[in-house]
Amino acid sequence: MKTVIIGGVAGGASAAARLRRLDEQAEIVVLERGDFVSFANCGLPYFIGGEITEQSALTLQTPQSFKARFHVDVRVRSEAVAIDPAAKEVRVRDLADGSEYRERYDALILSPGAAPLIPPLGDVESPRVFTLRNIPDTLAIQSFIKERAPRRAVVVGGGYIGVEMAENLMRAGLEVTVVELADHLIAPLDLDMAADVHAYAETKGLQLLLGRAVKHIADTGSQLQIELDKGSLTADMLLLSVGVRPDTALAADCGIDVNARGAIVVDAAMRTNLPDIYAVGDAVQVTDLVTGEPAFIPLAGPANKQGRIAADNICGLASSYRGTQGSAVLKLFDMTVATTGLSETAAQRAGLCYDKTYTYSASHAGYYPGGSSMSIKVLWEKGSLRLLGAQIVGFDGVDKRLDVLATALRLGAKVTDLAELELCYAPPFGSAKDPVNMVGFVAENIVTSKVKQFFWHDVADLPRDGSVTLLDVRTDTERARGHIDGFSHIPLDSLRQRLGELPAGKPVYVHCHSGLRSYIACRLLAGHGFTCYNLAGGWRLYEAVTQNRQVPPYICTQCK
Amino acid sequence: MKTVIIGGVAGGASAAARLRRLDEQAEIVVLERGDFVSFANCGLPYFIGGEITEQSALTLQTPQSFKARFHVDVRVRSEAVAIDPAAKEVRVRDLADGSEYRERYDALILSPGAAPLIPPLGDVESPRVFTLRNIPDTLAIQSFIKERAPRRAVVVGGGYIGVEMAENLMRAGLEVTVVELADHLIAPLDLDMAADVHAYAETKGLQLLLGRAVKHIADTGSQLQIELDKGSLTADMLLLSVGVRPDTALAADCGIDVNARGAIVVDAAMRTNLPDIYAVGDAVQVTDLVTGEPAFIPLAGPANKQGRIAADNICGLASSYRGTQGSAVLKLFDMTVATTGLSETAAQRAGLCYDKTYTYSASHAGYYPGGSSMSIKVLWEKGSLRLLGAQIVGFDGVDKRLDVLATALRLGAKVTDLAELELCYAPPFGSAKDPVNMVGFVAENIVTSKVKQFFWHDVADLPRDGSVTLLDVRTDTERARGHIDGFSHIPLDSLRQRLGELPAGKPVYVHCHSGLRSYIACRLLAGHGFTCYNLAGGWRLYEAVTQNRQVPPYICTQCK
Repeated sequence: MKTVIIGGVAGGASAAARLRRLDEQAEIVVLERGDFVSFANCGLPYFIGGEITEQSALTLQTPQSFKARFHVDVRVRSEAVAIDPAAKEVRVRDLADGSEYRERYDALILSPGAAPLIPPLGDVESPRVFTLRNIPDTLAIQSFIKERAPRRAVVVGGGYIGVEMAENLMRAGLEVTVVELADHLIAPLDLDMAADVHAYAETKGLQLLLGRAVKHIADTGSQLQIELDKGSLTADMLLLSVGVRPDTALAADCGIDVNARGAIVVDAAMRTNLPDIYAVGDAVQVTDLVTGEPAFIPLAGPANKQGRIAADNICGLASSYRGTQGSAVLKLFDMTVATTGLSETAAQRAGLCYDKTYTYSASHAGYYPGGSSMSIKVLWEKGSLRLLGAQIVGFDGVDKRLDVLATALRLGAKVTDLAELELCYAPPFGSAKDPVNMVGFVAENIVTSKVKQFFWHDVADLPRDGSVTLLDVRTDTERARGHIDGFSHIPLDSLRQRLGELPAGKPVYVHCHSGLRSYIACRLLAGHGFTCYNLAGGWRLYEAVTQNRQVPPYICTQCK
Repeated sequence: MKTVIIGGVAGGASAAARLRRLDEQAEIVVLERGDFVSFANCGLPYFIGGEITEQSALTLQTPQSFKARFHVDVRVRSEAVAIDPAAKEVRVRDLADGSEYRERYDALILSPGAAPLIPPLGDVESPRVFTLRNIPDTLAIQSFIKERAPRRAVVVGGGYIGVEMAENLMRAGLEVTVVELADHLIAPLDLDMAADVHAYAETKGLQLLLGRAVKHIADTGSQLQIELDKGSLTADMLLLSVGVRPDTALAADCGIDVNARGAIVVDAAMRTNLPDIYAVGDAVQVTDLVTGEPAFIPLAGPANKQGRIAADNICGLASSYRGTQGSAVLKLFDMTVATTGLSETAAQRAGLCYDKTYTYSASHAGYYPGGSSMSIKVLWEKGSLRLLGAQIVGFDGVDKRLDVLATALRLGAKVTDLAELELCYAPPFGSAKDPVNMVGFVAENIVTSKVKQFFWHDVADLPRDGSVTLLDVRTDTERARGHIDGFSHIPLDSLRQRLGELPAGKPVYVHCHSGLRSYIACRLLAGHGFTCYNLAGGWRLYEAVTQNRQVPPYICTQCK
């Protein structure tokens, strides 16, 4: 039994190791076009920024270590140039001397990955223009910084890689501007959750040009001249990080089904349409776990799992990949941004009927030092109540809550199940009512109609003609920091005494800082016959989204 | 509708706030024997150690704030001395003047908590002997330290409170010895998982006397003389933290069912056997979520949730408490210890048929700085594969993985589902194969018989007569640090070349540092016809448990 694997990183490397563990007698050949196998893709930006100092740290395995431990024949600088499915052969070019040979297989695994998109924007081949996919790309950027001492960098594209690179170029001493076509960074976030990210990035000195398109890049010899749809920029270097395309020409050429985007179509066993040919990783089309629809979600975790699953199936073990939910996390200086499942935008696109909570919770007990607050948005399907997605922006403890939500989503939990989760608690780590429990409590109150919500995007359209009451229940101090036009002010703790000030029979739209005290006010007012609506996410979210300036992530002691 | 709540902390306070949110017209009276309501029980040790500096931080609500926000009539220094279930009245003593009055209720919630056990060991009433339950206890300890400048403290009982207090007394400048009757600290841990805790505590200067009983405490006037079953100690102060008993004499006196331990028996709606009387928090018997059996597991998270559930039911909302799984976490200096579900000891006691994994994983990608390793033990039921419990000891990221496991357990996951969880990954936060995924992979290999395990406690009994092969596959460097007698040595990466050195036809017992490379060795050897057994947890765990000295929690670069 001989398996040939094309591509020796992530999925390909996982498949090779698993194959060997399952079958000591198997013949395993890995063909890798580049110089390195099993390298730390996700660590590359941190080598440029200097958090990772040793180049050797980026290489998890070498051809030698793979050989010694797993008896795998790893051939670097070996490019698969054609597949002959009928003959079950791969044509291989040795990039050292250009010679070619044919390699027979019983099973073939394609793990070609995805390549950065390079849009036709002028001098994209300039030595000042970079992309980041592999170790040579990384070393090229590092050398350029070292030798040419660039002062200003432009990053085109504000996705995960763009933002990580922006931070790391700043760490390397550059001034950095991110140009993003969409109205916000990090596509899996909704705009309202990205607002805090924008504000924080700007306080760190990262310049953002959102909703702006790059039209042309010109290398003048001494610098880059970048024309935007409005205005222009100059820079000493530029990173293109506008997305990736599956690197699948080889696959398509031999008759393997690819989708419109070029991603290889596979079944749950990671099998392509051709016999004994499997594909894994960033080059394949996956099932979106939430919608059940085909999707392209290139991520390291799924790639590694798919490699294992392909190996299992080659060895006759039933093992299947159910789908990708898009769990991802980003460090931006001290901020953490994490997502799983569908954003609201994606839920709308999928035509799902959903509801949502915005909560703002302390990372740990307010009385124990060092805590900070995190902003959480959770979506669920109306009716079934199943979780659809979660987004969290904050600092300490964000990745923990996202992983709990990702686990609940994967296991098919209802949003109301979150109320019941029993998470570990001590003051340095959390709260007796964990932020995830709070999501469950709030969702349950919504689902059982104990509270109705309105949202930041509804505020501008609320009538200011006296037909409804607009009420701010924050403290005097909070009110003094800023308020929403048209909202009258009665602090929550005086509300019972001042009920007479509210016009009878009119609906009341209530807000506080984060949405907790206004919920209490809504319940109070409902008990006195008022129809109430609670501003989800409170003044904090409203202000962050509509003003796009930073609202301090302090722990609201009024909400404890 | 009038609800009287006896006890204004955690469960009682949660119930009061929820009652008000559900019913603006309800009359709500909270009777609290002490001076404080809704205080931060779990924060008390940190006030003594100085992490929390303001006493006001310990008080989450005051009678005044409760009144203003929730219109709750909170009466501190008001002790419920008798309940008359027939008349639906509570007899209340005003501790200010000793006067008594009767308070009628429609519904009654008991939230009396649990009191520290005070064993009859001599001068336990000495002013040098303390327990820790509430703010006055905390202030008494703090004053004693300030005014009497004690140098040496003994903590009797090495549970969560005992260990937290030991750390905080050390932070306050004392030399501390913990005396624990059992052979290990932290009862919800098994001994094998506690070994790292012991070693770490000792490196921090905390003295441990394990498996030792206090027989008598004598106050000599100038110090305490503490007689143990073997030997004796002197100390300037002593904390008794040997457990708690439900504070339920009041409940039992009026005919409310309590169990043999004194815990109030309630149904899933938190109802006692008497009409309209509910009970919540540390005083009640809960259902163990894993075994389905009655249990006593006093924890803050469940107490708060139970308060909410009792309030729901009083207001006619169907809401129920399914059970407690015992999720808990402890900070010990920089170490984190966390548990959920059953320990192995508890699983044995419950007569469950289980299997287990020990894994040792990096908190985040090895190539990104600042990571550390954590030791994870997971139990599942054979056959059904449902998760039974998890224990984690390590540093950064322990609470996250425990919460993921606690969520999976609560949602009824199988251990093999852990392989499939899609957790958020970037190098500063985790690995593409998260430590929790690794548990799933290892468990799947065990469940599908790809590997057989042996354990640290089997090592001494393995035959050394040549009938089996004992094999250490670590590197030369690791071997030089120490080895297990009788194990021959072939590094994994030379094993294929040196197969001839292994006697054919004999079972091979293999170990490496953590269990990962020895698993690879087992698969390799199995492929050459050997029957193999892998030492679960590896040399690291074996050494930690059997020598009880610290094995450095370094990231084994051989296991990457």
